[in-house]
Amino acid sequence: MLSNTLRQIQRQSVRAFSSETKIWNVYLSGEIHSDWRNVIAEGVQKKNLPVRLSSPNLNHEDSDDCGAIILGMQEERPNWDRLGAKMNDIRTKTLLSQADIVVVCFGEKYRQWNAAFDAGYAAALGKPLITLHPPEISHMLKEVNASANVVCEEPEQVVQTLAYVILGELPSTPKDGDRFIPIADRLGKGNPNP
Amino acid sequence: MLSNTLRQIQRQSVRAFSSETKIWNVYLSGEIHSDWRNVIAEGVQKKNLPVRLSSPNLNHEDSDDCGAIILGMQEERPNWDRLGAKMNDIRTKTLLSQADIVVVCFGEKYRQWNAAFDAGYAAALGKPLITLHPPEISHMLKEVNASANVVCEEPEQVVQTLAYVILGELPSTPKDGDRFIPIADRLGKGNPNP
Amino acid sequence: MLSNTLRQIQRQSVRAFSSETKIWNVYLSGEIHSDWRNVIAEGVQKKNLPVRLSSPNLNHEDSDDCGAIILGMQEERPNWDRLGAKMNDIRTKTLLSQADIVVVCFGEKYRQWNAAFDAGYAAALGKPLITLHPPEISHMLKEVNASANVVCEEPEQVVQTLAYVILGELPSTPKDGDRFIPIADRLGKGNPNP
Amino acid sequence: MLSNTLRQIQRQSVRAFSSETKIWNVYLSGEIHSDWRNVIAEGVQKKNLPVRLSSPNLNHEDSDDCGAIILGMQEERPNWDRLGAKMNDIRTKTLLSQADIVVVCFGEKYRQWNAAFDAGYAAALGKPLITLHPPEISHMLKEVNASANVVCEEPEQVVQTLAYVILGELPSTPKDGDRFIPIADRLGKGNPNP
Amino acid sequence: MLSNTLRQIQRQSVRAFSSETKIWNVYLSGEIHSDWRNVIAEGVQKKNLPVRLSSPNLNHEDSDDCGAIILGMQEERPNWDRLGAKMNDIRTKTLLSQADIVVVCFGEKYRQWNAAFDAGYAAALGKPLITLHPPEISHMLKEVNASANVVCEEPEQVVQTLAYVILGELPSTPKDGDRFIPIADRLGKGNPNP
Amino acid sequence: MLSNTLRQIQRQSVRAFSSETKIWNVYLSGEIHSDWRNVIAEGVQKKNLPVRLSSPNLNHEDSDDCGAIILGMQEERPNWDRLGAKMNDIRTKTLLSQADIVVVCFGEKYRQWNAAFDAGYAAALGKPLITLHPPEISHMLKEVNASANVVCEEPEQVVQTLAYVILGELPSTPKDGDRFIPIADRLGKGNPNP
Amino acid sequence: MLSNTLRQIQRQSVRAFSSETKIWNVYLSGEIHSDWRNVIAEGVQKKNLPVRLSSPNLNHEDSDDCGAIILGMQEERPNWDRLGAKMNDIRTKTLLSQADIVVVCFGEKYRQWNAAFDAGYAAALGKPLITLHPPEISHMLKEVNASANVVCEEPEQVVQTLAYVILGELPSTPKDGDRFIPIADRLGKGNPNP
Amino acid sequence: MLSNTLRQIQRQSVRAFSSETKIWNVYLSGEIHSDWRNVIAEGVQKKNLPVRLSSPNLNHEDSDDCGAIILGMQEERPNWDRLGAKMNDIRTKTLLSQADIVVVCFGEKYRQWNAAFDAGYAAALGKPLITLHPPEISHMLKEVNASANVVCEEPEQVVQTLAYVILGELPSTPKDGDRFIPIADRLGKGNPNP
Repeated sequence: MLSNTLRQIQRQSVRAFSSETKIWNVYLSGEIHSDWRNVIAEGVQKKNLPVRLSSPNLNHEDSDDCGAIILGMQEERPNWDRLGAKMNDIRTKTLLSQADIVVVCFGEKYRQWNAAFDAGYAAALGKPLITLHPPEISHMLKEVNASANVVCEEPEQVVQTLAYVILGELPSTPKDGDRFIPIADRLGKGNPNP
Repeated sequence: MLSNTLRQIQRQSVRAFSSETKIWNVYLSGEIHSDWRNVIAEGVQKKNLPVRLSSPNLNHEDSDDCGAIILGMQEERPNWDRLGAKMNDIRTKTLLSQADIVVVCFGEKYRQWNAAFDAGYAAALGKPLITLHPPEISHMLKEVNASANVVCEEPEQVVQTLAYVILGELPSTPKDGDRFIPIADRLGKGNPNP
Repeated sequence: MLSNTLRQIQRQSVRAFSSETKIWNVYLSGEIHSDWRNVIAEGVQKKNLPVRLSSPNLNHEDSDDCGAIILGMQEERPNWDRLGAKMNDIRTKTLLSQADIVVVCFGEKYRQWNAAFDAGYAAALGKPLITLHPPEISHMLKEVNASANVVCEEPEQVVQTLAYVILGELPSTPKDGDRFIPIADRLGKGNPNP
Repeated sequence: MLSNTLRQIQRQSVRAFSSETKIWNVYLSGEIHSDWRNVIAEGVQKKNLPVRLSSPNLNHEDSDDCGAIILGMQEERPNWDRLGAKMNDIRTKTLLSQADIVVVCFGEKYRQWNAAFDAGYAAALGKPLITLHPPEISHMLKEVNASANVVCEEPEQVVQTLAYVILGELPSTPKDGDRFIPIADRLGKGNPNP
Repeated sequence: MLSNTLRQIQRQSVRAFSSETKIWNVYLSGEIHSDWRNVIAEGVQKKNLPVRLSSPNLNHEDSDDCGAIILGMQEERPNWDRLGAKMNDIRTKTLLSQADIVVVCFGEKYRQWNAAFDAGYAAALGKPLITLHPPEISHMLKEVNASANVVCEEPEQVVQTLAYVILGELPSTPKDGDRFIPIADRLGKGNPNP
Repeated sequence: MLSNTLRQIQRQSVRAFSSETKIWNVYLSGEIHSDWRNVIAEGVQKKNLPVRLSSPNLNHEDSDDCGAIILGMQEERPNWDRLGAKMNDIRTKTLLSQADIVVVCFGEKYRQWNAAFDAGYAAALGKPLITLHPPEISHMLKEVNASANVVCEEPEQVVQTLAYVILGELPSTPKDGDRFIPIADRLGKGNPNP
Repeated sequence: MLSNTLRQIQRQSVRAFSSETKIWNVYLSGEIHSDWRNVIAEGVQKKNLPVRLSSPNLNHEDSDDCGAIILGMQEERPNWDRLGAKMNDIRTKTLLSQADIVVVCFGEKYRQWNAAFDAGYAAALGKPLITLHPPEISHMLKEVNASANVVCEEPEQVVQTLAYVILGELPSTPKDGDRFIPIADRLGKGNPNP
Repeated sequence: MLSNTLRQIQRQSVRAFSSETKIWNVYLSGEIHSDWRNVIAEGVQKKNLPVRLSSPNLNHEDSDDCGAIILGMQEERPNWDRLGAKMNDIRTKTLLSQADIVVVCFGEKYRQWNAAFDAGYAAALGKPLITLHPPEISHMLKEVNASANVVCEEPEQVVQTLAYVILGELPSTPKDGDRFIPIADRLGKGNPNP
């Protein structure tokens, strides 16, 4: 039997058919207090993927105050917030609507209703959706994940998914490491269905 | 000067033009642990509004287990959850997509990412959106509220909004009670803009 | 040569083919300070047309204050206005989007930017548009009229248009009265094109 | 601990919120040589579900010859087949496009490319999709099932799914019978995620 | 071997699955100088088909003069024609856009560019299209027919098509009469493809 | 008073606002037996307009026989024609659907139902439509022209329209030559409306 | 406490995530008698924003006479106006429909129904909308502003909004100058909601 | 009479009108065990067609295991398959939805329900569809072929179709070789219709 690593080498010799490179627009929505976007950006760059990343404005303070700074302050918080949110909305909805793939990241600490809102918005537009969150909050996200194509736990998995989707490139080490057995080896040829 | 009550009576003599009644489909999304839907249903019935209310399945246990009961159990929670969520999804997306108005309720206790997801889904379809939540969580909902037509704090306000939108009927007592002064009285005619 | 009246009788014996009656939804947008909607409603009733008329809320004071009454007052006029306008918007966009035909009336006295806004909204949705306004403001409305199917000067013409479109019924007296000559009589058969 | 049966009774006392009944259009595509549609029709009738079932023409011979009978015979089979297929297509695409839910049944014996074609057509229109097939052909259907909301093995499960989606009604006996344990009992409250 | 008539009887015992009747909207466009619409209307009535027929205004003189009668005469023919055409357009596009099936009839005598225009309009909206014309003009209509589901020579064939599409009912006498042989008889079972 | 020529010079100093050049896709449909497309192509090149012209296949014989050459001959003309028409359809509908502007030319000699079909198809997609035909057939084209933005008699007018729409450039000589008087001169300022 | 200027510097170090520059199409509709477009164009150039500005034809005389010059004069003003308006419409609707952001400017002097029409058209297409007008006419524009993302008083604010939306860049001086206090400073952390 | 070869030369001197080259996106779906895609790619390259080919991932093993490798193994085959299928789905639906033309290949050996699913998906999106399969399975594909523009037996015919559609180039040797007679020669001018 072949080692997994060797198998990977074999596999990678047969790649997806593509006579010319398309640039894939990928919108990164959600969580702004951790560095997941940078991990994805570095991974995309390292693998040299034909990907154009975009995101909402990531400066929390600016996204709260932008409306008040440009248009003037408001006495009450809901009015202050609305000015800013409608301004951010121009960027968010434009980039999300023009994306090929939408990635939405949820964390344990914040409610991030805007992330779930973006996921719903993307789903209604028929965008392929990738969610990213720690497994501990999986149950609370079951409706969101039901509309997702891929549910990741780590940003590296998002990069691996993009590499596979776009170039047909799979990681040399599977998530389950040496325990990984291809389905055809495990169940035998002929599509048994235990 | 006329009392507010008298003013209301005057006003209500001039109503929206409508030669025949349309049934308005209103979908009630979100929060399933409080009785806000019943308050709206009773208000709609009391005012005899031409409204057909609908909602997701409201039995938490059923909505978790429906897939496993009908299709069989799954070993792992994410698989169990997915079976159920995809089944609930048939109801949710169908009724939401066919609604004239979508109401989404958020509470302080739960994350309700599915409520925010529904709000995003409705917004992308161009549905008029009414949100309902205690004012304390307003800031966290600023992106969701920016896509809403009306932001309510109490379910009675949702009923009042429906009554006004559909029949042109306004409550006899304004939210601010006797302190209420019509804008034309306060600022004078001629559209001044202080 | 036949008199015009006789001709009309002849004509009306050959009517549009329709084996069953459809109800036509007609939305009446614009001008709220004159009685043009009542003229149309009476004409529709008199001719017994299968038409369901609808309109925005016609009470100016209510449409200004509805938001402030239900949701609470706002200090500044733009905030006060926004609360009301977003609430009225639920009714306006729903009925306009579900209409078969949109009629928009402009008067000389007011700017009625909302009427022109509704006309643009209807045009983008591909709705058949009928405008109604005195001929004196025709030049200022040239872009709006360029998207209209029919441009009327009097509400009676709107009723006549609906009667013709739906039932194939034409008025017994043409607008130009006895001066009216059918095009075939005037130019002769065979489609000459002077 | 409660017995499963008792639990079901408890559950069924809390039903989906719906102030008025909507008729659900359900299109039954695929397999025409077994009686699965009758099983569903009987189940729907027995449970008194507000469902309007529809299907393609089920007479194999008619669906082959309809074009040749009405329009005239063709020398070559592909031309003969095209005449018929384009005629059947009027029924198929109209009913499928107007359905709320599309059910597609695959069997082991035939290739049923038209069933898979209908599934793809429904998916592109965003229709909720239920597939029905013996588990043995699951692998060959993996792309189709990936677009489905629910994957059933027996037509009774389709009926159960409709009853749950529309009325919130669950079967008194789960698929796994007495082995069934609700997820909250199995894993405990608080959304653990093993 | 069974006679064709007997075969038809056999066949008709297995009908399309439909638990409740849908009304089919059928728009009849084109040719206004022959009686093809009446033939279809009588056929539909005789077979008791659940069909709602509609058409453009069929009075040639009215459809030329409607605009000039209601809105006033125009000096030049193109302006006169435009007034009328835009008014007729309200009826035409509304009924065509809301139809389930569009039938377009072409004759040898007139150019009927409006019929071809309607066919293109229907095709772009994805409407099932039935064309009706004498075989002699088939070549000139090849682009139009390429977008049609069914190409008929006689209005009776349109009725037969509707009866088959909606009820699964086939004519007792095939177009080719006794010469008709079902494809399975002619080529044998097993899908040979000569 | 200024001469018309001088006026033109004045006018051309104030041009449409456009900070960067967009390429306009213009599809030229209809008439294939005259040289109107070449006239437009030369005009576009001479004026250096940022325009990409496209058209259906213009070789009549090829467009008849393409299907039979590539896929094989058919016995009957309608089958032969269908093979070719469906193949041409790929080019036609793709280019037409991706055009910014659709120009359709009609001549007196041929029926050109495909030209009218394309016009209807473009109208349903909301494409700006320019028609081009001799004035003698204007009446027969009244429904088509009612959906057109511009009705031209000569291909030079199509070029002039493109130059004006894209660059704001008007011809130095108006169609009516020295008789031309600007509307403001003729009627005076202030929008009189005789 | 930090000075506002210092705060701005801090803020600007954290910018929106964008790995590659998209060109934003911005359509400038409305008011043609003041220089607001030039102010925006200069601001966009000065800040080096990746923006492509476009507009309707800005030459009032040309936009009135274009149709009459190219297609020939008309006797009556409404016909003259229609020829021109339909020609301008090609440019207007194409550029507006292809824009990422639509800016509409209203002035006190003119009725500018075409500006409001464009705003309605943009809103129906779901385009992000920025309105620009003096505060004195705010009440008359309440329905239009209710569909806007941002309501500006000065063209510089439009430039600032574009700079923030696209690059995350905020002006060094807030509208309220030294009086400006970030919301988090004013209300304290933790989302209080007074 | 001209030889066929000479005729071809004549024909090719009159080509489709196209002032600038558009790149055509062509998605190649279906059959992954034969080399049909390479035949098309070589043909496209040889003829120097402005075509960008794309396809699903063609490595069978990778497309089965991609989800399990990146996201982790699943115990049961349907869960394993779903992980992979949803991941492949991102590529498939994105490229298919952005294609100008979709080619779907069916073979005799496999069921290829995903190929038929893709064909249905493409048809619902209104994509021009080319099918490719041996004539022996034509009957089983009659519903799929009824939605196709072109039905090919050999991949060379797909290349020929692309060359004709895009450049107006026809093969020098017709499929039927020397037996080929242009329709105008066979039937004579004037559109006879035997």
